[in-house]
Amino acid sequence: MGGDNAPVNEVAGAIETVENNDGINITLVGKAGLIEKELKKYSYNSSRINIFNAEEVIEMHESPAEAMRKKPDSSLVQGLKLCRSGEADGFLSAGNTGAVMAASLFTLGRIANVSRPTIGSRFPTERGISLVFDVGANVDCKPLHLLQFAVMGSVFANHIYGIDNPKVGLLSVGEEKSKGDAVTVETHELLEKSGLNFIGNVEGRDIMKGETHVIVCDGFTGNIVLKFAESVLSLLKTKFKDYADRGIINKLKVGMAYGTLKDILKDFDYQEYGGVPLLGVNGVSIIGHGRSSPRAIMNMAIKAEQMVRAGINDIIAQKIKDINEFKT
Amino acid sequence: MGGDNAPVNEVAGAIETVENNDGINITLVGKAGLIEKELKKYSYNSSRINIFNAEEVIEMHESPAEAMRKKPDSSLVQGLKLCRSGEADGFLSAGNTGAVMAASLFTLGRIANVSRPTIGSRFPTERGISLVFDVGANVDCKPLHLLQFAVMGSVFANHIYGIDNPKVGLLSVGEEKSKGDAVTVETHELLEKSGLNFIGNVEGRDIMKGETHVIVCDGFTGNIVLKFAESVLSLLKTKFKDYADRGIINKLKVGMAYGTLKDILKDFDYQEYGGVPLLGVNGVSIIGHGRSSPRAIMNMAIKAEQMVRAGINDIIAQKIKDINEFKT
Repeated sequence: MGGDNAPVNEVAGAIETVENNDGINITLVGKAGLIEKELKKYSYNSSRINIFNAEEVIEMHESPAEAMRKKPDSSLVQGLKLCRSGEADGFLSAGNTGAVMAASLFTLGRIANVSRPTIGSRFPTERGISLVFDVGANVDCKPLHLLQFAVMGSVFANHIYGIDNPKVGLLSVGEEKSKGDAVTVETHELLEKSGLNFIGNVEGRDIMKGETHVIVCDGFTGNIVLKFAESVLSLLKTKFKDYADRGIINKLKVGMAYGTLKDILKDFDYQEYGGVPLLGVNGVSIIGHGRSSPRAIMNMAIKAEQMVRAGINDIIAQKIKDINEFKT
Repeated sequence: MGGDNAPVNEVAGAIETVENNDGINITLVGKAGLIEKELKKYSYNSSRINIFNAEEVIEMHESPAEAMRKKPDSSLVQGLKLCRSGEADGFLSAGNTGAVMAASLFTLGRIANVSRPTIGSRFPTERGISLVFDVGANVDCKPLHLLQFAVMGSVFANHIYGIDNPKVGLLSVGEEKSKGDAVTVETHELLEKSGLNFIGNVEGRDIMKGETHVIVCDGFTGNIVLKFAESVLSLLKTKFKDYADRGIINKLKVGMAYGTLKDILKDFDYQEYGGVPLLGVNGVSIIGHGRSSPRAIMNMAIKAEQMVRAGINDIIAQKIKDINEFKT
């Protein structure tokens, strides 16, 4: 219920999910009346979508910790409780990101020995997969946190994207290990000894090359780069519009180029990626954009299913245990 | 001499500068033989370009502090000495960025009360000017440093881009003043009381909107976002190429769209902006890309001229003094 236009896209996304994915059933958590009204617009197999009523809604502007406490009957808290009790295998939300993180952590708890859960995001690349951890869960990080992000990100890249021995890079301002702020320089040392496939520091320009599968940084830097990247598409759209507005010839040129551009620029459309995973909590929780399209909702559901089937949290628990033992 | 293909583009840039700018004369500092050979390719007014011989070259990979000490007869050190002595009014280099910063600071010194000189970069925007300070001079920053970047950036935006009372934003992960890492939250307090036109926190997505003239962050985050932004053009080029390679129809489509795209994407070409200023040193020093084109070199020279004619350092000195008095 927390998305920008909930439950319209959420319901449409649920329909799209069950139509295209035999292995996924959906429970829609929220105001039953509103959800039923939306569902009536579609014909679907009603055994695969059900409703769990929750009367409260956490809004985008609310303080995460306070909202969670004050609204125990929110769709967010109730949905996560279904995960904790095992009635659901995974949770998706297009609501308030901070609130989803806080409620997931509080309701599901952390995987043993994980200091800080992390959210990662997939970036568009020239070729291949590039995942950046963290993109906003943790603004002030210690080297141990960054090391754990690398471990969790590697497990995710391996088991969700099928990448053997994923290459891990540390985001910094130069390739040399001496380059970077104090936390980064110290993290480099830890990563070198981690047993991960650490290729060293990478720079801002390397994120979209796709040669490094997992790129680690604090959530302050990661969040700023992510939001910057998301704004590229809107900048380009404005530039094309301005160009077209400068005369009929330009308008024709942009008209002719439009289809080509759309094809090419779709990599910059976060809808294709379908939400970011919160790793390190004891359950599967996927956070989407407030404006997530039905397609994005479906892609979030698919990612959740993959995480559940891969048993990703058991693997993370083992790898984090290994690295902690190695460090001591 | 430190640029990637020096002195070819540097000489061509000097020629382009004097041809198009009556108010700028150039002294080319470096290996006289090589420079003369390049200059012979052009016909130009020889009273406006002269050569100052310097036998050593600081390479891209060298450690800044060490290179500066070991190569006192480098084009970098000798060029900056011409500035210090008043024989030149400003200095430009397409060489090793770290070395240019270190040598500028060491040779020219700091403006009184400036704790840390800063480099800023202009970003492409939907509309208007967006300057980000710092983009790599200072990776670990204290709130006072960020406050001073805001002051220097405002003076630059005002006197170089003619913006009255430039809007200043603090780069963070959310608009609320409580959002951000510890340094950012503390800096917010200082900026609120600074007397600058502080509009509050801005996010990664705001950098290219162009609604905030001066955006302040530490040089770690700024450098990563800058290098990320510079990689957008190369990503798009690869995407267009891949698309064209997928068949003759696609090739035709990209061919037809090419001119339009080139016009629109030129905003992403750093060559148009011509280098980044180092603010806070006692002189004018502009740092360009290693691969700076002749056009970029000319744009650097134009920016240096503007800074000299505006007397920007005197203004910075006064504003930094004002803000220090206000703080105590």
